[in-house]
Amino acid sequence: MRPSGRLPDALRQISLEPGFSKYAEGSCLAKFGDTHVLCTASVDERVPPFLRNTGLGWVTAEYGMLPRSTGSRTDREAAKGRQSGRTQEIQRLIGRSLRAVTNRSGMGETQIKVDCDVIQADGGTRTAAITGSYVALYLAFKHLVEIGKLKSIPMTDSVAGISAGLYKGVAVLDLDYDEDSTAQADTNFVLTGTGGIVEVQGTAEDKPFSQDQFMELLQLAQKGVAELTQIQKAALGL
Amino acid sequence: MRPSGRLPDALRQISLEPGFSKYAEGSCLAKFGDTHVLCTASVDERVPPFLRNTGLGWVTAEYGMLPRSTGSRTDREAAKGRQSGRTQEIQRLIGRSLRAVTNRSGMGETQIKVDCDVIQADGGTRTAAITGSYVALYLAFKHLVEIGKLKSIPMTDSVAGISAGLYKGVAVLDLDYDEDSTAQADTNFVLTGTGGIVEVQGTAEDKPFSQDQFMELLQLAQKGVAELTQIQKAALGL
Amino acid sequence: MRPSGRLPDALRQISLEPGFSKYAEGSCLAKFGDTHVLCTASVDERVPPFLRNTGLGWVTAEYGMLPRSTGSRTDREAAKGRQSGRTQEIQRLIGRSLRAVTNRSGMGETQIKVDCDVIQADGGTRTAAITGSYVALYLAFKHLVEIGKLKSIPMTDSVAGISAGLYKGVAVLDLDYDEDSTAQADTNFVLTGTGGIVEVQGTAEDKPFSQDQFMELLQLAQKGVAELTQIQKAALGL
Amino acid sequence: MRPSGRLPDALRQISLEPGFSKYAEGSCLAKFGDTHVLCTASVDERVPPFLRNTGLGWVTAEYGMLPRSTGSRTDREAAKGRQSGRTQEIQRLIGRSLRAVTNRSGMGETQIKVDCDVIQADGGTRTAAITGSYVALYLAFKHLVEIGKLKSIPMTDSVAGISAGLYKGVAVLDLDYDEDSTAQADTNFVLTGTGGIVEVQGTAEDKPFSQDQFMELLQLAQKGVAELTQIQKAALGL
Amino acid sequence: MRPSGRLPDALRQISLEPGFSKYAEGSCLAKFGDTHVLCTASVDERVPPFLRNTGLGWVTAEYGMLPRSTGSRTDREAAKGRQSGRTQEIQRLIGRSLRAVTNRSGMGETQIKVDCDVIQADGGTRTAAITGSYVALYLAFKHLVEIGKLKSIPMTDSVAGISAGLYKGVAVLDLDYDEDSTAQADTNFVLTGTGGIVEVQGTAEDKPFSQDQFMELLQLAQKGVAELTQIQKAALGL
Amino acid sequence: MRPSGRLPDALRQISLEPGFSKYAEGSCLAKFGDTHVLCTASVDERVPPFLRNTGLGWVTAEYGMLPRSTGSRTDREAAKGRQSGRTQEIQRLIGRSLRAVTNRSGMGETQIKVDCDVIQADGGTRTAAITGSYVALYLAFKHLVEIGKLKSIPMTDSVAGISAGLYKGVAVLDLDYDEDSTAQADTNFVLTGTGGIVEVQGTAEDKPFSQDQFMELLQLAQKGVAELTQIQKAALGL
Repeated sequence: MRPSGRLPDALRQISLEPGFSKYAEGSCLAKFGDTHVLCTASVDERVPPFLRNTGLGWVTAEYGMLPRSTGSRTDREAAKGRQSGRTQEIQRLIGRSLRAVTNRSGMGETQIKVDCDVIQADGGTRTAAITGSYVALYLAFKHLVEIGKLKSIPMTDSVAGISAGLYKGVAVLDLDYDEDSTAQADTNFVLTGTGGIVEVQGTAEDKPFSQDQFMELLQLAQKGVAELTQIQKAALGL
Repeated sequence: MRPSGRLPDALRQISLEPGFSKYAEGSCLAKFGDTHVLCTASVDERVPPFLRNTGLGWVTAEYGMLPRSTGSRTDREAAKGRQSGRTQEIQRLIGRSLRAVTNRSGMGETQIKVDCDVIQADGGTRTAAITGSYVALYLAFKHLVEIGKLKSIPMTDSVAGISAGLYKGVAVLDLDYDEDSTAQADTNFVLTGTGGIVEVQGTAEDKPFSQDQFMELLQLAQKGVAELTQIQKAALGL
Repeated sequence: MRPSGRLPDALRQISLEPGFSKYAEGSCLAKFGDTHVLCTASVDERVPPFLRNTGLGWVTAEYGMLPRSTGSRTDREAAKGRQSGRTQEIQRLIGRSLRAVTNRSGMGETQIKVDCDVIQADGGTRTAAITGSYVALYLAFKHLVEIGKLKSIPMTDSVAGISAGLYKGVAVLDLDYDEDSTAQADTNFVLTGTGGIVEVQGTAEDKPFSQDQFMELLQLAQKGVAELTQIQKAALGL
Repeated sequence: MRPSGRLPDALRQISLEPGFSKYAEGSCLAKFGDTHVLCTASVDERVPPFLRNTGLGWVTAEYGMLPRSTGSRTDREAAKGRQSGRTQEIQRLIGRSLRAVTNRSGMGETQIKVDCDVIQADGGTRTAAITGSYVALYLAFKHLVEIGKLKSIPMTDSVAGISAGLYKGVAVLDLDYDEDSTAQADTNFVLTGTGGIVEVQGTAEDKPFSQDQFMELLQLAQKGVAELTQIQKAALGL
Repeated sequence: MRPSGRLPDALRQISLEPGFSKYAEGSCLAKFGDTHVLCTASVDERVPPFLRNTGLGWVTAEYGMLPRSTGSRTDREAAKGRQSGRTQEIQRLIGRSLRAVTNRSGMGETQIKVDCDVIQADGGTRTAAITGSYVALYLAFKHLVEIGKLKSIPMTDSVAGISAGLYKGVAVLDLDYDEDSTAQADTNFVLTGTGGIVEVQGTAEDKPFSQDQFMELLQLAQKGVAELTQIQKAALGL
Repeated sequence: MRPSGRLPDALRQISLEPGFSKYAEGSCLAKFGDTHVLCTASVDERVPPFLRNTGLGWVTAEYGMLPRSTGSRTDREAAKGRQSGRTQEIQRLIGRSLRAVTNRSGMGETQIKVDCDVIQADGGTRTAAITGSYVALYLAFKHLVEIGKLKSIPMTDSVAGISAGLYKGVAVLDLDYDEDSTAQADTNFVLTGTGGIVEVQGTAEDKPFSQDQFMELLQLAQKGVAELTQIQKAALGL
């Protein structure tokens, strides 16, 4: 039934490649099928002004797509001189998701900037970005522990993102572009490794959906994140 | 328990004043307690380029806050030269919510631009904006029917937005600023008059929340939207 | 002769509603007929860099129009990413007018930012903005006196703005949009409560006007500002 | 009494050099003492969209200052990415002044763009710009007549600008920078060759001024413009 | 002598991976040691306005660096809202280099946009970008031939770029970042497969260099481009 | 053979007028035939942040063209809100050229900003700008010596720029616009008074050129700069 032949509750082939970047303190190339997102975590000694002298750190994220990561070329945001609303929405989501599992008082007044750059897009770039960013952020913290800047990794849980939607009336997990572009409903869930809800974003593309349908999507997402959590642990050698 | 003394499932004082603007084809001043949002719906003969010669119409929204609508003054976005990520996120949400209950093939190639300007903010501006925008949009369509441009009002349902969150561990409806700024979880629901889910946005501010907590918030929202739907009907004389 | 039926020297219905805003230290909703401008005065502890350590304060203004304050919708300046020349011209005029009656050495190194937002426009928005801003600014200073930050209100006079123009060859006071858009000459006067000239801006829209015509317009303006001054005093309870 | 030793009603040394530019259809280097403004008038076949198919032409102006035209270097507006409010105010003033003496129906659907670039500034740049722009515009129209595009020069009068102000309590004409920066009142007048008032801009820098003082300034300006008109005629060989 | 241990005339390890992108009509991942640049060539049916109805095509390029492609994080240009002068200089160079070997009348009115995105930077990103872009552009033209849009590949020669510089007084080829940041002179050459000079950019970083030194650098570059040309041919299966 | 009738190795009429500006610490109006560039050097007490507390100074340049300096009007960059890639490329070139002959440790922590504004353009604006900027910069340093801020002029050599190109197959010096717009190859050389190479920029406009052709252009440039050096000395009275 699905264009890819996957079962409704099947993830795409997932790959998390830690340490992809030569320079970044933490990095991960996250692949969800043909969606490839490079996540790098960069340590910055300066926190934003509103946190100075608070003893708290900050984690923030930026998101971008290479112009030809998509089926037809998208204009370069740097050339247009502004980031789209979609870009800003996604990067805010990634930042909130990472902060929800970070113990900011355990970071000291340090900032981590996570860059998520989409090398190739086939649907679900924001969920791949969140899933890979967790790995990159963990590795950056691990680096700070190794060089003696931090005593322990200031994270309270792992976090991953996955989409679920109604495609031809059926609830399916981890939509690719073909499904996404025709789905009746599209939801993105950000859940922790222990099953807590961090972010929920659901949109009825065409007609409203019911509470029961929504619950079905949430359960698919919980199954998907459980699998992603195992892949994250394996990538980090935990 | 709530700063305002309200019961957990109580809305603030709601007022929807239709026809507030002298010029707009449809307008509504929406008040959720001390949150006041002016919603105007303006008819534009031109649809965006991607819809030309498709027979479909378009509904879009813009959102802004007056600089001193807030407790301390916020810089004017026009002076800064860019809309914030938050502004863009909210105006995209309003636009999607309205389109979900609009029959765009019944509009002809007409565009309605809905402006939601926050005159005073005390939490929940996006939900007040959606609730008032529905009234403004309905009135603009009604105007097009009255002058013979449309045969009937091309809307399939009503739509309204409400927030719910966990405040001091308790699920509460329609958070004001005092609650919002300290809530553990903050969710916004956009539901139709017949109970369908159009948009769900949930964010754990501090620590993740559980599936059960989420369901409790959804039920509060359903109760709140049922009340808002009655107030919308009364405002429109339906 | 005038579209509104007013006599040549008659103001529109004027209303100045002080304390309109819940949050601002000073505020006033100014109505000149169907022109409605919300003026708020916000206290800012920081003066601009060029005034640091001078002992002088600063008063500045910003101006904006809601997109559908006008008969046909105007594009939102925040979305366009720049303020128009007209907007900048008006906000500079408001700022100069207020500073002309402010004793800046009596303010200490405090800044007041006055926001003038046009809720509805029917001609004469800049003069309504100046007239209402004076009330808002006075109230903000009064607040600073009441909380002990200032010893007395550092204003040397009141100030108000009014337009006068040549409409169908006749000098008329306080033009509304119908008159303004076809007037031969359009002048704006900013005068003090004791009759001094603070700002004069006269423009021949179509053909030059004579010195005698100009004097006639100035006299109309003096009559108008005398009336506005009384209304300001009443609004402030002076 | 004046820093320059001039009498109160004396202009600075004025020079209008027509045809300064090799390329422009009309040009004039206007010097008011040490204030030097290069004015060029460029013919553009396209009118702005709002004038298409109206049979009317358009005259518009742009204004800029070289970074080191001033005593201390001013940041380059092109590098800052925006024109200041002052720049926009001045270029709008120049455009209106020129249109006031242009018969736009006699131009056909042609646009003239006048650029006023300040090479050196010593006060009064806007009035030198207007005075020189008239010459440049006249020459551009003359060129269009000579090549057969127009039958006659579509101007109804000449136009020139001059400043007058209160300096140490005395009304003086054509202020230079030393006077301008300490004047109590600063007014700019744009008058036609036959004495009509096109634009008046008066600002009390420090304390309000009286109606009598204003009249005195207007009379000085009338004297000054009469002299400028003769110099314009000489420059154009009329 | 060189930090990398390379001989003065030795290139880094070069790899050109054609067809790296799933979507682009032509693509190549170019690696010059640790410098990795993804080049994609996208076909666009529309040429720029100045070429409409000329029968000529256009080839243009854009360049960007991922924020953490560099040793310390560089701000994202899309977030800053403008491309740096360096970025613009490089993308103009790439575009000119490609057009110099393209027969634009043989393209028809088609445009190819080449995007060069630096995934990792270790010096020489512009030369890797040009070398890889040639491969991507060739493949895009080959695709147009295969689908029948073009009769033959409209390129007159191959093109590649390489740097040469004076490092500790010695002329060396293909500088990496360690060398580049301390070199006395830095030159970039763009040469064709048959040895023609397309672009030369030489800069004395510290003190001027002599004509003889310049000739030595040119000869190194000729040797380097001869090798790159063979690698390009191999990558294209020619 | 050349449109101007010049011999292949002949410069245009060159004029360097020092002290053109009333205010700038150093200035020069450079004329290369009909190309006129005003160069001003302004002393700024503040160096850029990256040089604070290093004991080093900085020299930087900005470049602009008046809108009607060109044959047809060019849009004003300040009005467009961004400097073009060409502008940025040229101003970076000028800055590097001047720094190559400046002993920055001999300046102290002072910055000189050189503005090059093209009053009239007939090809070769960047080379006229560099040649005139050297004079302006020298004069600004001389001023600092005269007022006791510096002990000696911190320049190691003079510097000048000139173009050479292939026009109708012949190598020619100092191209004017007519030649430049049809030249097969266009190169710009920046050389010191003692013959060192500071910058080389060569571009094949149409088809690649050979090493021998390039050498011929370099020799023409050496001849041209030798002449410019004498003119610079004369202008400075050396």
